[in-house]
Amino acid sequence: MTVFNKATIIGVGLIGGSLALAAREKGLFNHIIGIGRTPDNIRKAKELGVIDDYTVDLTQGVKDADLVIIATPVGTIVSLIEKMLPYLKKGAIITDVGSVKEEITNRVDDFHLSTVNFVGGHPIAGTENSGVEAAFPDLFKGKKCCLTPSKQTNPSALKKIKDLWTAVGSEVILMESAVHDRTLGAVSHLPHFIAFSLVNFLNDIDQSKERIFDFSAGGLKDITRIAASHPVMWKDIALMNKTQIVDIIEKYQKELNSFKKLIKKEDSNGLFQKVQKARNIQRNIIGKT
Amino acid sequence: MTVFNKATIIGVGLIGGSLALAAREKGLFNHIIGIGRTPDNIRKAKELGVIDDYTVDLTQGVKDADLVIIATPVGTIVSLIEKMLPYLKKGAIITDVGSVKEEITNRVDDFHLSTVNFVGGHPIAGTENSGVEAAFPDLFKGKKCCLTPSKQTNPSALKKIKDLWTAVGSEVILMESAVHDRTLGAVSHLPHFIAFSLVNFLNDIDQSKERIFDFSAGGLKDITRIAASHPVMWKDIALMNKTQIVDIIEKYQKELNSFKKLIKKEDSNGLFQKVQKARNIQRNIIGKT
Repeated sequence: MTVFNKATIIGVGLIGGSLALAAREKGLFNHIIGIGRTPDNIRKAKELGVIDDYTVDLTQGVKDADLVIIATPVGTIVSLIEKMLPYLKKGAIITDVGSVKEEITNRVDDFHLSTVNFVGGHPIAGTENSGVEAAFPDLFKGKKCCLTPSKQTNPSALKKIKDLWTAVGSEVILMESAVHDRTLGAVSHLPHFIAFSLVNFLNDIDQSKERIFDFSAGGLKDITRIAASHPVMWKDIALMNKTQIVDIIEKYQKELNSFKKLIKKEDSNGLFQKVQKARNIQRNIIGKT
Repeated sequence: MTVFNKATIIGVGLIGGSLALAAREKGLFNHIIGIGRTPDNIRKAKELGVIDDYTVDLTQGVKDADLVIIATPVGTIVSLIEKMLPYLKKGAIITDVGSVKEEITNRVDDFHLSTVNFVGGHPIAGTENSGVEAAFPDLFKGKKCCLTPSKQTNPSALKKIKDLWTAVGSEVILMESAVHDRTLGAVSHLPHFIAFSLVNFLNDIDQSKERIFDFSAGGLKDITRIAASHPVMWKDIALMNKTQIVDIIEKYQKELNSFKKLIKKEDSNGLFQKVQKARNIQRNIIGKT
């Protein structure tokens, strides 16, 4: 098991912070540097004992790093890599935790890295909370972590990142980046855009504000929970997985439409079948994930 | 506070069973008769101590009842009332707990009841579980209960039903039935049809079955929880609140569409605004309901 002497985490929020805590617990990183945009946020990460030191200076923070983990919104990852490249030491490994992989992987491949390596990653873990205060070391335990190597990915760097995620308790799955984006577009991105739209729609039809929400039960709270997710993160995911998400939303709209048509036609049996099917899948498959 | 000597509950499931338990706890019903379609289910309600006696015979069960509570899927309520009318004693009160009110209220008004009274009701309470085993006396505590009197509703019967729901811990809200159906169509029915469609859609695009669900996190479980609801109940709600639900789904589709268009146009600021708005509403309003 490789122990990284100096690990630099860019973006010490829920994911970056939890990985720091988990790696520290397992003795996987000797020294952890956090990089933040402003001193205020990243100082908190040090105060909480999540990182050993911090800086807001990228070139300073990645210097001598054996491992750089980028845990910022997906829209910033490629430009961060581009900026840090001249300052990385030979043999350094860069990885990320972004929820979109194809565009990042392709654009990093275009850099034709030679002295450093990149391994794209995405731990399937999270809560609707964000920020380093929400971080906890067991976040990745029993969860899947997708790694999306390309033809250019160095096998030894891939193995080290695989071992890192395995050590913090995750099951590592190797996937093509396009398959990853299609899969996550369906099971994660689509539900988020459905939930954002539902919340905004209900708010807008409510003439008296807060009034219709008085009549919601626990069901609405459950279905909208993910609508409290981070706006920058999700704006970036929408933009970077655009093609897949647009296609998936369109296909979902067809399904919702066919449901609506059954209601219009008063197709009692068709409605029963669809609801029963949904109930069985939710109970027997999704409910057991 | 009126104590009903003989209360008959048709459909002793989650709602009917919980009301029986709550009313018994508060001493509101002296004797509780349960009516079921088959002996097996309704016998269980007696075994669990939820009801005192049971029958599968409607005319037998409503005989001498001071109060009849109909807690069956909404599609059956009006015809049950029609069938029981000749057998009810003078002064009996009929109420229901159905999630749709306008069609029921209007059709019962068409009966021009004279010796008995009807008060339409809908406790805003429930879980995704159904059946008498899921019943518990505190289900209604702190929850809203909508009553939807029409011009024909007897004020004294209305007061008695209002007192009953207040006594089991609910806040009673009087609403016009059409307003009820529009409000619940938005905050409850729409989310259910969104969730049913999402589950079915994801299942259908999954070529390998269960495979894409391997990559879902807690978010998908939350958003789909209500998709495990009862098929007969929701088929009936769809049919009985058809006009409102179809209209509301269409308006929701426009909102989802406008989201999709922002993604297509790569409108970064527009996307950020929409997600931020959803987050604020979820956190500050829905999350606090």
